[in-house]
Amino acid sequence: MNKHTPQSEFKTPQVTTGPLPASRKVYVKGDQHPDLRVPVREIDLHATANEPAVPVYDASGPYSDPAVVIDVESGLARMRTAWIKTRAAQYSNNVEDYDGRDVKPEDNGGAEGKYLARQFPVKNKPLRGTGTGPVTQYEFAQAGIVTAEMEYVAIRENMGRKQMLEGAADAVAQGESFGAEIPPFITPEFVREEIARGRAIIPANINHPESEPMIIGRNFLVKINANIGNSAVASSVEEEVDKMVWAARWGADNVMDLSTGRNIHNTREWIIRNAPVPIGTVPIYQALEKVNGVAEDLTWEVYRDTLIEQAEQGVDYFTIHAGVRLPYIHLTADRVTGIVSRGGSIMAKWMLAHHRESFLYTNFDKICEIMRTYDVSFSLGDGLRPGSIADANDRAQFAELETLGELTKIAWAHGCQVMIEGPGHVPMHKIKVNMTKQLETCGEAPFYTLGPLTTDIAPGYDHITSGIGAAMIGWFGTAMLCYVTPKEHLGLPDRDDVKVGVITYKLAAHAADLAKGHPAAQMRDDAVSRARFDFRWEDQFNLSLDPETARSFHDQTLPKEAHKVAHFCSMCGPKFCSMKITQDVRDYAEGLSDNEKKDLADMSEKGMKEMSKKYKAMGSELYLEAEAVKKANEGL
Amino acid sequence: MNKHTPQSEFKTPQVTTGPLPASRKVYVKGDQHPDLRVPVREIDLHATANEPAVPVYDASGPYSDPAVVIDVESGLARMRTAWIKTRAAQYSNNVEDYDGRDVKPEDNGGAEGKYLARQFPVKNKPLRGTGTGPVTQYEFAQAGIVTAEMEYVAIRENMGRKQMLEGAADAVAQGESFGAEIPPFITPEFVREEIARGRAIIPANINHPESEPMIIGRNFLVKINANIGNSAVASSVEEEVDKMVWAARWGADNVMDLSTGRNIHNTREWIIRNAPVPIGTVPIYQALEKVNGVAEDLTWEVYRDTLIEQAEQGVDYFTIHAGVRLPYIHLTADRVTGIVSRGGSIMAKWMLAHHRESFLYTNFDKICEIMRTYDVSFSLGDGLRPGSIADANDRAQFAELETLGELTKIAWAHGCQVMIEGPGHVPMHKIKVNMTKQLETCGEAPFYTLGPLTTDIAPGYDHITSGIGAAMIGWFGTAMLCYVTPKEHLGLPDRDDVKVGVITYKLAAHAADLAKGHPAAQMRDDAVSRARFDFRWEDQFNLSLDPETARSFHDQTLPKEAHKVAHFCSMCGPKFCSMKITQDVRDYAEGLSDNEKKDLADMSEKGMKEMSKKYKAMGSELYLEAEAVKKANEGL
Repeated sequence: MNKHTPQSEFKTPQVTTGPLPASRKVYVKGDQHPDLRVPVREIDLHATANEPAVPVYDASGPYSDPAVVIDVESGLARMRTAWIKTRAAQYSNNVEDYDGRDVKPEDNGGAEGKYLARQFPVKNKPLRGTGTGPVTQYEFAQAGIVTAEMEYVAIRENMGRKQMLEGAADAVAQGESFGAEIPPFITPEFVREEIARGRAIIPANINHPESEPMIIGRNFLVKINANIGNSAVASSVEEEVDKMVWAARWGADNVMDLSTGRNIHNTREWIIRNAPVPIGTVPIYQALEKVNGVAEDLTWEVYRDTLIEQAEQGVDYFTIHAGVRLPYIHLTADRVTGIVSRGGSIMAKWMLAHHRESFLYTNFDKICEIMRTYDVSFSLGDGLRPGSIADANDRAQFAELETLGELTKIAWAHGCQVMIEGPGHVPMHKIKVNMTKQLETCGEAPFYTLGPLTTDIAPGYDHITSGIGAAMIGWFGTAMLCYVTPKEHLGLPDRDDVKVGVITYKLAAHAADLAKGHPAAQMRDDAVSRARFDFRWEDQFNLSLDPETARSFHDQTLPKEAHKVAHFCSMCGPKFCSMKITQDVRDYAEGLSDNEKKDLADMSEKGMKEMSKKYKAMGSELYLEAEAVKKANEGL
Repeated sequence: MNKHTPQSEFKTPQVTTGPLPASRKVYVKGDQHPDLRVPVREIDLHATANEPAVPVYDASGPYSDPAVVIDVESGLARMRTAWIKTRAAQYSNNVEDYDGRDVKPEDNGGAEGKYLARQFPVKNKPLRGTGTGPVTQYEFAQAGIVTAEMEYVAIRENMGRKQMLEGAADAVAQGESFGAEIPPFITPEFVREEIARGRAIIPANINHPESEPMIIGRNFLVKINANIGNSAVASSVEEEVDKMVWAARWGADNVMDLSTGRNIHNTREWIIRNAPVPIGTVPIYQALEKVNGVAEDLTWEVYRDTLIEQAEQGVDYFTIHAGVRLPYIHLTADRVTGIVSRGGSIMAKWMLAHHRESFLYTNFDKICEIMRTYDVSFSLGDGLRPGSIADANDRAQFAELETLGELTKIAWAHGCQVMIEGPGHVPMHKIKVNMTKQLETCGEAPFYTLGPLTTDIAPGYDHITSGIGAAMIGWFGTAMLCYVTPKEHLGLPDRDDVKVGVITYKLAAHAADLAKGHPAAQMRDDAVSRARFDFRWEDQFNLSLDPETARSFHDQTLPKEAHKVAHFCSMCGPKFCSMKITQDVRDYAEGLSDNEKKDLADMSEKGMKEMSKKYKAMGSELYLEAEAVKKANEGL
């Protein structure tokens, strides 16, 4: 069952490169940090559109820049190293490099010989905080310092806009953000304030300098996370690196490597060194492998060692299920689906075996110190999330959330960045209370939710059952949505599933941005709609989240090149097209005098009460020809 | 471009028959009408489940019953003819048969010779109301009469339950139905009351006796509609009949035949004679073909003739865009996407050309008389629905809705059944107001909405952009959701697209039922969840909306038959499985004394305030081992 390629046969992972259709990558410079080069994708439109290129957020990294030479064996350029070193010089040597931990056989689950995946060829010395100055973005923010990362994300969130869009304040005002405070334009100082308040994080381990900073918080664009990772029964290093690049290409803002089984260390190293997006993990998975899968044998020492191993590699956030406490376990006994979180159930098993409080909870301060040393962000895990509609919003789930709130404050006190994991399976009418309770309990720390799935009856379509819940909870205030693929509950997602999951969650996140009143979100919708209306088919494809699929669907019915400029589509055909009527309507509206417009408007605006009066005044005829209506209007 | 098969080559449409996996079709008898045989699908579970079969709503018609011989050339059995005839005997010959209208060449767009699709082989005399007694379900309901159709749908809505489920009232109370009044158990009398109040309809043309009655209303299960139909550039009769049967097989409660181009009459006849679900149309499409696609040449006479033609064939509901009035047209002039409804734009074109009020509006009373004569339900069309996020909820859209409210009351006065069409493209925060306004304006007549699509940026995924909006508006009170396929905006849906559209909308409708608190909706979720938890893979597949896809996704990772009974899945593998922990948890919880449970519960329930006190009482240590916690508890 082990698919891992023997070392001798290990091939360099193949990844997808090159620009997306009609897209150019442009880089925006910083003001406070002039060396910043913040990527924005600009989608060029057809000349007949007479419109500027449409800027969109670009998570794809250097892979989509034809000017960058990609060498997966070397990894991406270590862009942030210079920023981190500059800060070390400014802030009393706040970080230092050191020899780091040696890779041990158990880091790869004891895989050896031909079963051991090849090591990543380049080895860098890890960095760590020294304790002499701020290390984490939270500490810098609290100290009033705007880091390069903060300015970077400000520019990124504005999608390259140098100033506020016309009408941006109106867009924000017309949205319903449920108490979020989205500004019409993002400044670096606003970013700093949000991070200092704990309302946003920039997951940015100092040992992952290849990553392009991004921000997760309720007052920013809603982000999405894609899960990848091999398992004990399927997948290989090559596939996982490819999936990571592929996920980012289609818009994944973060990727979690949830690998289990053997070769976890080496797989992760290949992923991180090539990752332009922050990488998250669940360290307990690897810790469990180190004790041969026997949860009872887990110890704080093994776990601690794993945290340091992964922090040195550059993992940007750790899911830590420290809220699954001994007193809560019996609350899950009557559930339909018990404990479905893998991390949560591992800890439950350990606690029951020893009848002791979770070592994650009792050692939480020590964990905080490690997180702070490398600026690994907390993703406080929801180990008791509901795994079925029946178990949604139960006492077990909310008891854990209350503990996560307590832990958030402790992590902040240690200088750490924190986000909170949530949902799972939750019917629509129970979603909002999750968000409200999380905001209250966790001091507005960013919420990061799986779905939620709004029904259990559609395995194979759980990207959709959960896309519904994700759009809603994103609207209500969740800062990052963890994707669900069509394979959820059924199998390990392949490349195609990853893409479908990412696109589904991108559209859900975007729907949430629109509803919240994000000041620039509707720009892209409007550009698509104008293209659609003008029958600029190519523009419609290029502006869409998935140009390849849009084009291929169109071509299934009307494959010829001539149809790409056809002023009709396969739904109505060339003879009559509803879109074509509008020019007549516009000519007509222009031809109306102001008085005529007013007359017409009055007819519609005064509503049917007035109309009824007119009908009665005219006798018993219910329906009138236009002439008669006109007369009646004159009489009023 | 014309794909129509020449008559000589016309093959009998092939349709999919046979039961769904592990499913039996059972028929429930009526009480008041003992000859009723109401279909319910029962899904058998594995013996180890020790659970009864799970009953689910069954829209698939006789095709899924292996005991029924299907002959597409003869059409389905004309089940309702006996009921209709019985009523004629009881209620002063309320209906009569007559010779009906002759098929004219223009009914098939002038197609002739080898371009004319073959006629359906059987010709029945049409029925019509005589005016001597009630004809429509609305009239019967108002007269206090429970028809066979009403009892049929009551049994159907209960999915065969003979009495209220235990806990049904609680389920209803725990839902959020936004003012709907869902009863814990549906009686025939409740159905009658809802129809009499105009809050529900049973689309059931007396000339479509092959149809199995179904109900559309806010206090019933949320229904879905699938659109099919050939266009001037693609598809054939054979494909459309197959698509109709296929759509119903996967759960489409209604199907609209939106054919344009030639052969509309003959295509529709094949569809209706083989349709177990109500069929809707937009008659103006065919009327336009009769005047060679020139909207200006439309007349009331051509339209009226088309209504009668289609009513005699048995179309169950007509989309009629009578709310698109001359005074509203200029309101669309500044829209990004103008008028996107085909029917709306045809009428706009006509009104502008003649500068007269719409002939649909001015002849509305005459239309009502035709609808009443055959019990064709109104689906009052939203010709001014927004075609982009930018145009959502504008004055044009709501002006039309107000007129639809006026027309609803007139149609009721004529004894007709009415539903109202709505949405289109609407961002999430603007959805609710549509529903609220529709309920207020249209006297709670059932709302029937397209999507709405919650963003414009994902062509190729518009089943999902709209599935989000559909689930939400279904929750808020929409009675029937008109599906959107992945091909929306791009091409004509094929068979696969129809299935994806139907499954997506079934899950959205079900998510809405759950959120509204439908008393039996969660039964199926719970059955899936128990199957999932027990690793009953076959049951999980069989209980799902699309067993074929679920199974195939599972098999892509773990294809062997042995894995179908494996107590693990490909996500975690055999070594550690979170689901398996729960037995330990249950044993543990059972072993706890009541006092111990109380102690534990107190720890979690009193929350962190009490915990803080204990921490302080114990000194400065933030984290405590379980023993210390126990001591602290005793001290409280």
